[in-house]
Amino acid sequence: MQKQDKPRIAISVGDLNGVGIEIALKCHKDVVSICEPVYCINSHMLEHAAKLLHVEIPQNVITSHVGGIFTIKPGQVDATCGKYSHDSFMHAITLCKEKKAQAVVTMPIHKEAWMRAGLNYVGHTDLLRKLFKKDAIMMLGCEQMYVALYTEHMPLKEVPKAISEEKLFTFFMNFHKSIGDEKVAVLGLNPHAGDNGVLGNEEKEIEKAIKRVNTLVGKELFFGAVVPDIAFTPHFRKNYTYFIAMYHDQGLGPLKALYFDESVNVSLNLPIIRTSVDHGTAFDIAYKNKANTLSYMNAIKSALSFI
Amino acid sequence: MQKQDKPRIAISVGDLNGVGIEIALKCHKDVVSICEPVYCINSHMLEHAAKLLHVEIPQNVITSHVGGIFTIKPGQVDATCGKYSHDSFMHAITLCKEKKAQAVVTMPIHKEAWMRAGLNYVGHTDLLRKLFKKDAIMMLGCEQMYVALYTEHMPLKEVPKAISEEKLFTFFMNFHKSIGDEKVAVLGLNPHAGDNGVLGNEEKEIEKAIKRVNTLVGKELFFGAVVPDIAFTPHFRKNYTYFIAMYHDQGLGPLKALYFDESVNVSLNLPIIRTSVDHGTAFDIAYKNKANTLSYMNAIKSALSFI
Repeated sequence: MQKQDKPRIAISVGDLNGVGIEIALKCHKDVVSICEPVYCINSHMLEHAAKLLHVEIPQNVITSHVGGIFTIKPGQVDATCGKYSHDSFMHAITLCKEKKAQAVVTMPIHKEAWMRAGLNYVGHTDLLRKLFKKDAIMMLGCEQMYVALYTEHMPLKEVPKAISEEKLFTFFMNFHKSIGDEKVAVLGLNPHAGDNGVLGNEEKEIEKAIKRVNTLVGKELFFGAVVPDIAFTPHFRKNYTYFIAMYHDQGLGPLKALYFDESVNVSLNLPIIRTSVDHGTAFDIAYKNKANTLSYMNAIKSALSFI
Repeated sequence: MQKQDKPRIAISVGDLNGVGIEIALKCHKDVVSICEPVYCINSHMLEHAAKLLHVEIPQNVITSHVGGIFTIKPGQVDATCGKYSHDSFMHAITLCKEKKAQAVVTMPIHKEAWMRAGLNYVGHTDLLRKLFKKDAIMMLGCEQMYVALYTEHMPLKEVPKAISEEKLFTFFMNFHKSIGDEKVAVLGLNPHAGDNGVLGNEEKEIEKAIKRVNTLVGKELFFGAVVPDIAFTPHFRKNYTYFIAMYHDQGLGPLKALYFDESVNVSLNLPIIRTSVDHGTAFDIAYKNKANTLSYMNAIKSALSFI
């Protein structure tokens, strides 16, 4: 009975030449205590990986068949392996779409391996965006602090041009719908949040968008523009768990300084729930029993919290 | 004898309506154990402040007379008080220039009070730059981690235009001369440090300047362009104490997230040594015995380390 009550999580195994499968097997015992993981991999490949890792496959492991048989080459960039990580991800998404799982948790893929396999996506989030034709919101963090990125992989010089009341308002609304009635600190763009226009005036757009979203929601949930280098100080963080950064490093610099190992990656504003570890394939330590499991465990817990 | 061996530090008392003088008096006992502080204030004003704070002035306090008598109004922006904080600072600089002190440590001034007093400087560093006609380098941090800012109070959209090999090279050389043979991590400008040009190409300028400075110095001291959101992770910080950030929030966001209370502000590349607390006048808690003294003690220690 208890087993059926647990939410099902589809696990996309990531690049099998990297650390993903090791982490998944290492954490299985802890993971089954809080949910029912379904590993998107075929038994042959799972056994192959387990043999390389010198571990037994636990009896209560549930897999969902993803076709493909090849030789795992720890630490190598390989097109076949890249293609398989893509297939595992797509399979996990399908399980979610068909309500056979309630969330997808992804292990890291290798971007170059995807490129070699002819898969032209910047990563998981990019694929999800194109697949669902929705503006997925990329949020990173952990229980203590989540940072959503208003702009992501964009050259810094393009960022100021992307700050517009209209786009910010849409982003804020989508974010609000995804996380519910939570308070959100919205960062300014410029040093000292522009110092009343002396150091830039993009904050005016940000503040207009904040006003609009608060009016529409009927609550003062969004606060800003916050001075960017003050937002992540211990004192300020006491009052906020959710932050919106205007650009990649504004949010991820402080987040990774504080919570590098703990952080996970969450895709919001999509028809499915998807969380991910916030690290790469770590080819240098693949199959060496050295990988840190904290981000994966937090990705599972985070997925459960958004179900 | 021991007393004469200790370095003399000129203390600029900052805005007397703020927390500076409280911190100075509270720390005096600890400060005299490591140096000889000379407070740039007249006895009347010192007694006035001490009376408001309900504290006795320690017998071994040494002052250097700065003229001016007025009423302290805790927490108020006041032109006379602003002018006095300026005079105290100028006096401290003079003591240093005349070799009567070996470093200046500054308590916070209030920018609006300076403006009201007709003093058109953005702050201490700006005044020092104009006074000495030298490109002072602003560095913030603490023993664990120092961040020098390549650009400071500049709107974000101007930053990419300021990245040039020539200017970076000069900055790196001045920085090297100021701190000596230390390893320095230089951050990239763009997310993922440009990802080989996909997300911006300013990193090429940064890398050319790094190569030039290392060649001239004859050692591989400068390293980069480092991926900005990786630079301040615990793992990376193990190998570096000195960082150069391309812009204000790139460096100060992570620094203040990690070391808000401990940090100090250091002016490098000047004929005198100057460190400062890294907080403001904190008018809201002035004369309430609530101010944190950590930044001031670290500013003193930091000044001593650069003598």
